Amino acid sequence: MNKSQLFGQIRLKRSFLCIGLDADILRIPAFLRETSDPVFAFNKEIVDATHDLCVAYKPNLAFYESLGVAGWVSLEKTVLYIREKYPDLFIIADAKRGDIGSTSSMYARAFFDHMDFDAITVAPYMGEDSVKPFLAYLDKWIILLALTSNKGAADFQLVKDAGGEHLFEKVLRTSQEWGTTDQIMYVVGATQTEKIREVREIVPDHFLLVPGIGAQGGSLEEVARHGMNDQCGLLVNASRSVIYASDGPDFAERARDEALNLQVDMEEMLLEAELL
Amino acid sequence: MNKSQLFGQIRLKRSFLCIGLDADILRIPAFLRETSDPVFAFNKEIVDATHDLCVAYKPNLAFYESLGVAGWVSLEKTVLYIREKYPDLFIIADAKRGDIGSTSSMYARAFFDHMDFDAITVAPYMGEDSVKPFLAYLDKWIILLALTSNKGAADFQLVKDAGGEHLFEKVLRTSQEWGTTDQIMYVVGATQTEKIREVREIVPDHFLLVPGIGAQGGSLEEVARHGMNDQCGLLVNASRSVIYASDGPDFAERARDEALNLQVDMEEMLLEAELL
Repeated sequence: MNKSQLFGQIRLKRSFLCIGLDADILRIPAFLRETSDPVFAFNKEIVDATHDLCVAYKPNLAFYESLGVAGWVSLEKTVLYIREKYPDLFIIADAKRGDIGSTSSMYARAFFDHMDFDAITVAPYMGEDSVKPFLAYLDKWIILLALTSNKGAADFQLVKDAGGEHLFEKVLRTSQEWGTTDQIMYVVGATQTEKIREVREIVPDHFLLVPGIGAQGGSLEEVARHGMNDQCGLLVNASRSVIYASDGPDFAERARDEALNLQVDMEEMLLEAELL
Repeated sequence: MNKSQLFGQIRLKRSFLCIGLDADILRIPAFLRETSDPVFAFNKEIVDATHDLCVAYKPNLAFYESLGVAGWVSLEKTVLYIREKYPDLFIIADAKRGDIGSTSSMYARAFFDHMDFDAITVAPYMGEDSVKPFLAYLDKWIILLALTSNKGAADFQLVKDAGGEHLFEKVLRTSQEWGTTDQIMYVVGATQTEKIREVREIVPDHFLLVPGIGAQGGSLEEVARHGMNDQCGLLVNASRSVIYASDGPDFAERARDEALNLQVDMEEMLLEAELL
């Protein structure tokens, strides 16, 4: 899926919502734990209840790896299920990988060949040759960490160089040369609203993946005000606030309610920006 | 295993070698591919042939993930096999993880609870709260990326702040406050020999994990000259040059030869430094 196709999906769904599939075995409804694959059962219900309200799903690898082999089985089944039943959904591996070139090639093989993700989140610390192997897949995306939503973002991402440029700005400026706006997105946390405008000055045309609304406290409205461009340019992620809206038998229905609230707000913002 | 126990193992083995278990299904000897779990069969042979010559093994997660569920099975079997048969070996998950706190907690669960690794490599870009959850396991280690062995290390790790401090130096200086020298090691590439001395000035007492000798071209002698401290303080990793020394039926024997060459050199360096 290229950038204009993604924008097409956003217009169709009237939504730029990404739902984070962070299925924690300790938090999913108790009655599901009796099924043979509780994590997949949970994801399937969530996806079936919300697929028309969002444009993307984002499984967070840590939650699957914490269960070892069984978690990896659930992950592969989830990706396959979405891909086959809802082929227009954009699927992001939230994996934050990045290593020397020969190793990054193996990660690319894992997420783009073995599994059929559309995109993977990548950490920039190791530089260009750690990122390039992912970009060899021309119809796939990397989503590079720029300015993250957590407190620790200040430790290194906000370090200024001699010319006054923050590290995250350097990452944006340098990495945009590595591929096209059909291949690279950036992670910018919703908790960093005052900085989203600065990000947009450096990368006006790139899509941004914005985590941090909901449980982490960021504001959707602020994100849209500072971050939206003429092709929307935003995928805003909500995880816990949607998927754990209830821990009862109504969890999927309540997840839909939460996703619908976000979709309605997003539709309004898209209308206001004259993108619908 | 704490730092002094690790030094004890180094003295006992007369070696500070770490062997990277980067088992690529496309490179392991053809005859193994007919077994039910070729990657595990390969690792088992390598470990049995080299365990007395090294102090650590380092499976690189990318190589296992590229095979999906089957790869994860091979990984878990490999860790269990080493742990049970050679309990004094130090096992490192070369995973380069790092995410917001709640997610890093799940990665810690994956590598320290579900599997019994001694250490995990972690990327520092997201700062303190992305690293802390791993440090809650007091008998486990993180190995934080500082200055990596690849060309792209120059892109961001060598950026200087207004005071002239490189990012990798900032990472070393800041992160050593997060835990003890029994919990934190640093990755410093063997290809960065002129910088290892600078690293040692900032972290005189920490262990360094040094990849990049062998296939990547770094010099063991230079690494030891600049990096060794009074408890050795080095784990030097070789992967491809050892495990792919031959692709014939003699692969394990040839891997042992390569490991032995390195062990002999290392013994000499330890003697020279009067650590034996």
